[in-house]
Amino acid sequence: MRIGILGGTGPAGRGLAVRLARAGRQVVIGSRAAERAADVAERLVAAWPDRPLSVAGTSNELAAACDLVVVATPWDSAVPTVKPLAAELEGKVVVSMANALVREGREFVALVPARGSVAASVQSALPRSLVSASFHHLPASEMEKLDAPIVADVMVCSDHPEATTATLALVDAIEGLRGVDAGSLSQAAPVEAFTAVLITVNIRHKVHAAVQLSGYGDG
Amino acid sequence: MRIGILGGTGPAGRGLAVRLARAGRQVVIGSRAAERAADVAERLVAAWPDRPLSVAGTSNELAAACDLVVVATPWDSAVPTVKPLAAELEGKVVVSMANALVREGREFVALVPARGSVAASVQSALPRSLVSASFHHLPASEMEKLDAPIVADVMVCSDHPEATTATLALVDAIEGLRGVDAGSLSQAAPVEAFTAVLITVNIRHKVHAAVQLSGYGDG
Repeated sequence: MRIGILGGTGPAGRGLAVRLARAGRQVVIGSRAAERAADVAERLVAAWPDRPLSVAGTSNELAAACDLVVVATPWDSAVPTVKPLAAELEGKVVVSMANALVREGREFVALVPARGSVAASVQSALPRSLVSASFHHLPASEMEKLDAPIVADVMVCSDHPEATTATLALVDAIEGLRGVDAGSLSQAAPVEAFTAVLITVNIRHKVHAAVQLSGYGDG
Repeated sequence: MRIGILGGTGPAGRGLAVRLARAGRQVVIGSRAAERAADVAERLVAAWPDRPLSVAGTSNELAAACDLVVVATPWDSAVPTVKPLAAELEGKVVVSMANALVREGREFVALVPARGSVAASVQSALPRSLVSASFHHLPASEMEKLDAPIVADVMVCSDHPEATTATLALVDAIEGLRGVDAGSLSQAAPVEAFTAVLITVNIRHKVHAAVQLSGYGDG
């Protein structure tokens, strides 16, 4: 299965790309600038010479041709990026991972997108795609360091059971991550917003915290 | 130190009351109906005959006379409850723990209060109090069972350093809980909203999950 990552040259996309590639997935990073995506992909692969990572870089249009597509653009670029690709993305699982945040001093503050969440905006722009929301709470810098262990429970929400299943499988493929079916796409609003709290905690305490659920399937 | 819990006869208030009492705090549960609070307090103490719990029940007015006051009413009663007590609460630390949620089928959905969070509404109604937001993500039913182990990281946010310090101390006094300074009161919005995700996960997976932060002070 090939995974396309739209806007995949940013920290979130790069981190997800290398972790998925390590899990044996073929990853195609997309960007508005195909050359930049190619450069980033080359650097990501070169950074781990001992591991055979399959990461290519190209345009968002070509990345959208993959079997499953992740939207990793900045939050306010998500809809402008996916809208022209609606035909290509029809019938596919599209994973929204952006968070609407703004930095204010030593904190990140959650913004409320007009439809409540970025994922809801993406679903609205792609009415014929199966949109899920996931991968929000992971520390991007740590994701990119393949030798940094990450242990986290990753919320997955969607209005399409097929998208939930496919996204859970993607999460579970990454070492240390456990996917949690967190319900309908309406849960994306609080999931996305909570990222502000995590980043603020990270800044304040100089850590790379991620979410785990205690009392969830651990006895 | 005496802790007053306004609206403390509900599940959230009862759970916090017994856990704080076990930690050696004197707890005063308040209610609109003082008799009901007295009944609830009596039952809570009677439920654990081997433990000397100091829990009394009275009116919200008298509970507000305590050194530190927690607001544990339903979210839409928080402001109507605290506003008439503004003079009594002046200069005190007031901890807001309510979440604006609504049940929809098998999920709880986060509502957006007019000021973004219940805690912000409480701070606005009590401009001379030191409001913090905390204790949102704890499973109320498990909190009330003193023999149920709970392990959780509990976010604390406030615009008043004194309130953050006092609230962190309160959290840390409870066995199994670790307080996390999560920044300014603007973080209360995503903290409160994320409770919807946790409760939805709990319903969907029949668990009593709470939040832990991996990568935060645990090596």
